[in-house]
Amino acid sequence: MEINSVQNSKVKTWMKYHQKKYRDTDEKYLIEGEHLIEEALKVNVVDVLLVRKGKEHNFGYHGDIYVLEDHVMDKLSKNVSSVNYIAVCKKQIYEIKDNTRLLLLDAVQDPGNMGTIIRSAHSFGFDGIYLSEDCVDIYNEKVIRSTQGALFHLPIINCDLQMKVEELQKGGVEVVATALNEEAVYLGDYTPKASIALIMGNEGSGVKESLIKKADKVMKIEMANFESLNVAIAASICMYELRKG
Amino acid sequence: MEINSVQNSKVKTWMKYHQKKYRDTDEKYLIEGEHLIEEALKVNVVDVLLVRKGKEHNFGYHGDIYVLEDHVMDKLSKNVSSVNYIAVCKKQIYEIKDNTRLLLLDAVQDPGNMGTIIRSAHSFGFDGIYLSEDCVDIYNEKVIRSTQGALFHLPIINCDLQMKVEELQKGGVEVVATALNEEAVYLGDYTPKASIALIMGNEGSGVKESLIKKADKVMKIEMANFESLNVAIAASICMYELRKG
Repeated sequence: MEINSVQNSKVKTWMKYHQKKYRDTDEKYLIEGEHLIEEALKVNVVDVLLVRKGKEHNFGYHGDIYVLEDHVMDKLSKNVSSVNYIAVCKKQIYEIKDNTRLLLLDAVQDPGNMGTIIRSAHSFGFDGIYLSEDCVDIYNEKVIRSTQGALFHLPIINCDLQMKVEELQKGGVEVVATALNEEAVYLGDYTPKASIALIMGNEGSGVKESLIKKADKVMKIEMANFESLNVAIAASICMYELRKG
Repeated sequence: MEINSVQNSKVKTWMKYHQKKYRDTDEKYLIEGEHLIEEALKVNVVDVLLVRKGKEHNFGYHGDIYVLEDHVMDKLSKNVSSVNYIAVCKKQIYEIKDNTRLLLLDAVQDPGNMGTIIRSAHSFGFDGIYLSEDCVDIYNEKVIRSTQGALFHLPIINCDLQMKVEELQKGGVEVVATALNEEAVYLGDYTPKASIALIMGNEGSGVKESLIKKADKVMKIEMANFESLNVAIAASICMYELRKG
């Protein structure tokens, strides 16, 4: 089927998925580009595939496909360079099945940081991520792009972090918050228990004081010059050191 | 002095510093926001300070100060949220004085990655960074913002990387390239020599094959799932492990 107008009702619906509230209501979101679409197809979350008119595709996808004229495709895309493929995806039902290595994110707001952290968490074999309600939406286009597809493979769940910390502690998980405190133990000196949950905080203000108080341990990264690190960097260094296997 | 028009000749000159070619010609660039300006003042690179009309400032700066009306300030700023202070800075003359820990960047193009790498390199006590000519300009606004001011404290020099590698090797520096090769040694198994130079590559294509061939060692980061990492993450993990002190 071909679509040649941005006034088309389907296009109008898809356009809304640039906004969180419509992604939440319909439980759908958009992804752009070949690599992400290939990753999404592996986990079967593609609902509709949109192809730029005149472009071939080789995805082996047998669901609904629409061919969009250039100006419709360009209107729908958030990418700076022109993309030939967009997919409308259904949100996955995530479940965290193992508590060996967990990441807890407290108010991480920058989409690039969020996406990069998800990518690293997958690389270092973490079992899942719990997000506080005030984190950036993981279905934001910039987040998805920065994950490079890792969000399809790693369970990520929004929750009340304060309650989650208590629940994990009751289940025998050691909760470790990161902060540049005097009393914090160095990452290199920390021996992780069998099950740990690492808390990383907001770009400006770090982990909330109430969460630091609840944590079993507070940890910091050794540095030559004690400036703060970017949160995606700090999270990835910790996950590298505490990785599985 | 007050400026109330974007047609003012000084404003026109400053506007040009959003483009690399004019930054190169005049050896000047713009920075925005209190934190960066405070860091720039420490190393004495501020040439002119621009203040939004009606805003106080407490920088203790005694050079040229201009007060800009709102619409002039907003026109000059690249920031999404409105800033009250902009500084026109002079490029520093950088000199790398020690060869103990060097970072070599081959065609790193994303401004956020470049800035974050510079920030981490400073945190982990690296002595300086050599950039290939096809890296993103470090005086790009997004790079500067992501460095959080680290570029004022760490020497960064553009050069021919192929020649620089040979020169460093002649001087007894071990050159270590990063790549996801079969033969690459794991970061955790690598014992750095007294002087090392770490090469990180382009976001899409990694370190150029010609540089990998020249390197004394090839190294990779241990992962549970062998996906590629974001280059700023990979660089920072390596620099953390190989940090001074």
